[in-house]
Amino acid sequence: MEKLTGNLVIAQSGGPTAVINSSLVGVIQEALNHNEITSIYGALHGIEGILYENLVDLKKENPQTIEKLKRTPSSALGSCRHKLTPEEYERIVDVFKAHNIRYFFYIGGNDSMETAHVVGKMTSEMGYELTAIGIPKTIDNDLEYTDHCPGYGSVARWIAASVRDAGFDTEAIGVVDKVKVIEIMGRNAGWITAASSLGKEKETDAPHLIYLPEKPIKIDKLLADVEEWYKRLGYIVIAVCEGVKGEDGKPLKASAKAIDVDSFGHVQMGGAAEYLCSVISENLKLKTRFDKPGTIQRVSIALVSEVDLNEAYMVGQKAVQYAVEGVRDKMVALVREDREQYICNTGLVELEKVATAEKLVPDEFINEDNNGVTEKFYEYALPLIGGALMEYVRLEDYSLPKKL
Amino acid sequence: MEKLTGNLVIAQSGGPTAVINSSLVGVIQEALNHNEITSIYGALHGIEGILYENLVDLKKENPQTIEKLKRTPSSALGSCRHKLTPEEYERIVDVFKAHNIRYFFYIGGNDSMETAHVVGKMTSEMGYELTAIGIPKTIDNDLEYTDHCPGYGSVARWIAASVRDAGFDTEAIGVVDKVKVIEIMGRNAGWITAASSLGKEKETDAPHLIYLPEKPIKIDKLLADVEEWYKRLGYIVIAVCEGVKGEDGKPLKASAKAIDVDSFGHVQMGGAAEYLCSVISENLKLKTRFDKPGTIQRVSIALVSEVDLNEAYMVGQKAVQYAVEGVRDKMVALVREDREQYICNTGLVELEKVATAEKLVPDEFINEDNNGVTEKFYEYALPLIGGALMEYVRLEDYSLPKKL
Repeated sequence: MEKLTGNLVIAQSGGPTAVINSSLVGVIQEALNHNEITSIYGALHGIEGILYENLVDLKKENPQTIEKLKRTPSSALGSCRHKLTPEEYERIVDVFKAHNIRYFFYIGGNDSMETAHVVGKMTSEMGYELTAIGIPKTIDNDLEYTDHCPGYGSVARWIAASVRDAGFDTEAIGVVDKVKVIEIMGRNAGWITAASSLGKEKETDAPHLIYLPEKPIKIDKLLADVEEWYKRLGYIVIAVCEGVKGEDGKPLKASAKAIDVDSFGHVQMGGAAEYLCSVISENLKLKTRFDKPGTIQRVSIALVSEVDLNEAYMVGQKAVQYAVEGVRDKMVALVREDREQYICNTGLVELEKVATAEKLVPDEFINEDNNGVTEKFYEYALPLIGGALMEYVRLEDYSLPKKL
Repeated sequence: MEKLTGNLVIAQSGGPTAVINSSLVGVIQEALNHNEITSIYGALHGIEGILYENLVDLKKENPQTIEKLKRTPSSALGSCRHKLTPEEYERIVDVFKAHNIRYFFYIGGNDSMETAHVVGKMTSEMGYELTAIGIPKTIDNDLEYTDHCPGYGSVARWIAASVRDAGFDTEAIGVVDKVKVIEIMGRNAGWITAASSLGKEKETDAPHLIYLPEKPIKIDKLLADVEEWYKRLGYIVIAVCEGVKGEDGKPLKASAKAIDVDSFGHVQMGGAAEYLCSVISENLKLKTRFDKPGTIQRVSIALVSEVDLNEAYMVGQKAVQYAVEGVRDKMVALVREDREQYICNTGLVELEKVATAEKLVPDEFINEDNNGVTEKFYEYALPLIGGALMEYVRLEDYSLPKKL
C-alpha cells in the first residue's frame, strides 16, 4: 500500500473514560516518529471540531503536558454525540482538503466507527487520498470484533472495588438498611454490571444478585431471590444495570416522565435502582437504599486499571503505525493471544463491521437463574482490571459464651 | 483518679466509614500495652452486641488480621442505630457485671455519645465502677467540641476527587449532557458537600454551584445562577446536599412517597438531585443528569486520606491511654494546635455536651450568595484530605486559523 504524506487530525467521541486520553497520547507520541505526518492536529469536540474547523495544533503543546495527559481522565479534546448529515460529510471532506489532512483518527464506540467509515468511504469516492482509522473506546465493552474495549477495564475495576466497598458497608449497617441496590451504567449490554462481581471472594460476598439488560427481569422471581438472601444474611446487595427491562421488554424505570433522546436515537438511562427499591420495599417491607454512581464510575484515575491504561495507549500507538504502513479505513482491535497468561496484541477490523454490531454479554457468562455471572466471565474479565483489589480482612469472630 | 482493672469492650455504631476500623485497631493495639486491661472484647453491631451478649474475644484474633483491619473499610464489628430504653440500659449494666467489663469504648457520632453518656451515668449511679469513653466517628463532621471528626477527611477526599472527575467528564461531554447534579450525603450539615470544592483550582472548575442544607434554596435564584453559568461555559456542574431544604423549610425531594424513619427519628435522605434536575430541565430546557454515589462515598480505601486514617488510629489509641489514666465518661476530641503547619492533637470533652450538639457549617464558610464556599473553608478543610489530589492537566488549545 502506498504511503500518505500530510497532516493528521485526531478526535475523541462519545462518553469520556479514564483512559481515552491515553489513546490520544499514544497517537501523538507515535506520530512524532513518522516523517510522513507533517502536523498533528486535534479536533475539538469530536467530529464537530472538523465540521466547524475548530482545530488545535498538538505539536505546540508542552511534551510534559502530553505525557501527564495519560493519567488525566475524560476527553482532553472534548467530546460529542453528533450524527452527520450528507451535507456535513461533504463539509468534512472540504475541511480535510483545506488543511491537507491525510490521516484521520477517531477514538470512540460504534457510532464513531460509523462516522469514520463514512468519512473514509466519501473521501475515497471523491478521489481524496486519506486513511480513516478507528480507535476503540467504550466503557460499555459492546464493540464486536475486539476482545474487549479500552475503558472497560478501568470502569470494571471501579465498579468491582466500589460494590465490594458498598458490600462491606451493608454487611455492617444491614441491621438498619437491609437492601442496597447499586445502579450501574449500560444500555443494552451488561458488561459493566457483570464486573460488579469481580471483587467477590466467596458466594456470600456482595453483590448477591446481578441483573443485566440481556435478560428480562421477572419481578416475582426477583422478590423470591431477595427474600431468600435476606433470610440467609439479614441484608442483601443487588447490582442492577440501568438498562434492565421487564418481561414486556420495556425499561424498568422509577418515573414515567418524558425522557431525553440523543441524536443517535438513544434514550437517556436511569431509574432502575429506584424502581427496584420501591418494588422491594412495597412487597417485602424491607428498608431499601440505592447508590447511583453515574458518570463518576467511568472517569476515576484512583482506580484505573494499569492493563487498560497501557492497552489504551497501545491502540493509539498502533493506529498510527498501521496507518503509516498504508492501512486504510480499519479499526484497531484488541486480540487476546494467550488466555492462561493474558497476552494481548492488536489486530485490524473493517470499520463498517464494527459500526453495525453490538456485543452483548453472551449466555455462557450469565448464570442459569439470570441473576449472576459464571466462572467463564471471571476468566474473561479478571485480567482486564489490572491485578487484585486491595486486600481486606474480616475478623474471625471468636464468640464468647453467654453468661446471662 | 484511681485505676480500674478488668475487661474492655469496644463497639462501633452508626454509618460505616473508611477509617472507623483504624480507630478500632488503635484501641486494640494500645490496650495490649496495659496490664489493667485483662481481656479485649468486641460487641457485635454496636450496643446491641452488649444488649444481646454477642461478644467476641479480640485477643484471639491473628495480630496480622488486626493490622490489616486498619485499611479495611466499614465497621468490622458491625454497626447499628439503636436507641436504648431504660430497661435496656439496666440490662447493659448486667452484661457489664457478668463479664467484668470496666472499660467501655463506643466509636460513633452524637447518638452514640448519648448512649455512652447514659451508660456511664447509670453504672455510676448503680455503684458499678466503669469508664465509658466516646471515640468520635462521623463522615458528617457534625460533632461539636472537636475540630473535625475521623471519617470526614476521607469522604471529603473522595468527594473532592470524584466531583473533579465528574467535572472533567462534563467539560468534555457538556455539549450533550449540559447540567450535571451530584447528590452528596448530609442531613442537616453540609460539610461533605462543601468538600466538593476542594479539587477546584480555578473559578471555572467544577462544581460551579454548591448547595448546603444550612441555607434554604431559592429556586428562582438557583435557575438564574444555572443559566448564567451555562451561558458562560456551555455546561454546569452542581453539588447538592441530600438534606437541602426549600424556602418553606421542607426537604427538596423528587418524590412524595412515604419515607422511612429510623429509631432516632431521622428521616431517610435522597431525591434532592433528581428534584433539581426536573426543575432545571423544565424551566431552562437543558438536558440534565444526576450522580448519587450514596454509601460508596463513605467507605472508599482507594481515596482514603492518610491524615484521617492516622487520626482515627490516634483517637482510639488515646482513648485507651486516657481511660487507663483514670479519665471517665468523656469523648476524645481532635484539637488543631497549629493552623499554619496543621498539627493536630487530642483533648477531652464531656460526653453529654457532644450528645446534644450538632455542628453545622458556619456562615463564615459559606459565600454570600449561599451557593459556594469561602477561602476560610478551604483553609479549614484542605489539610484534612491528606495532601493534593493527583495532578491533572489540560491542553493549552493552540487554535489553528480557519481556512474556510
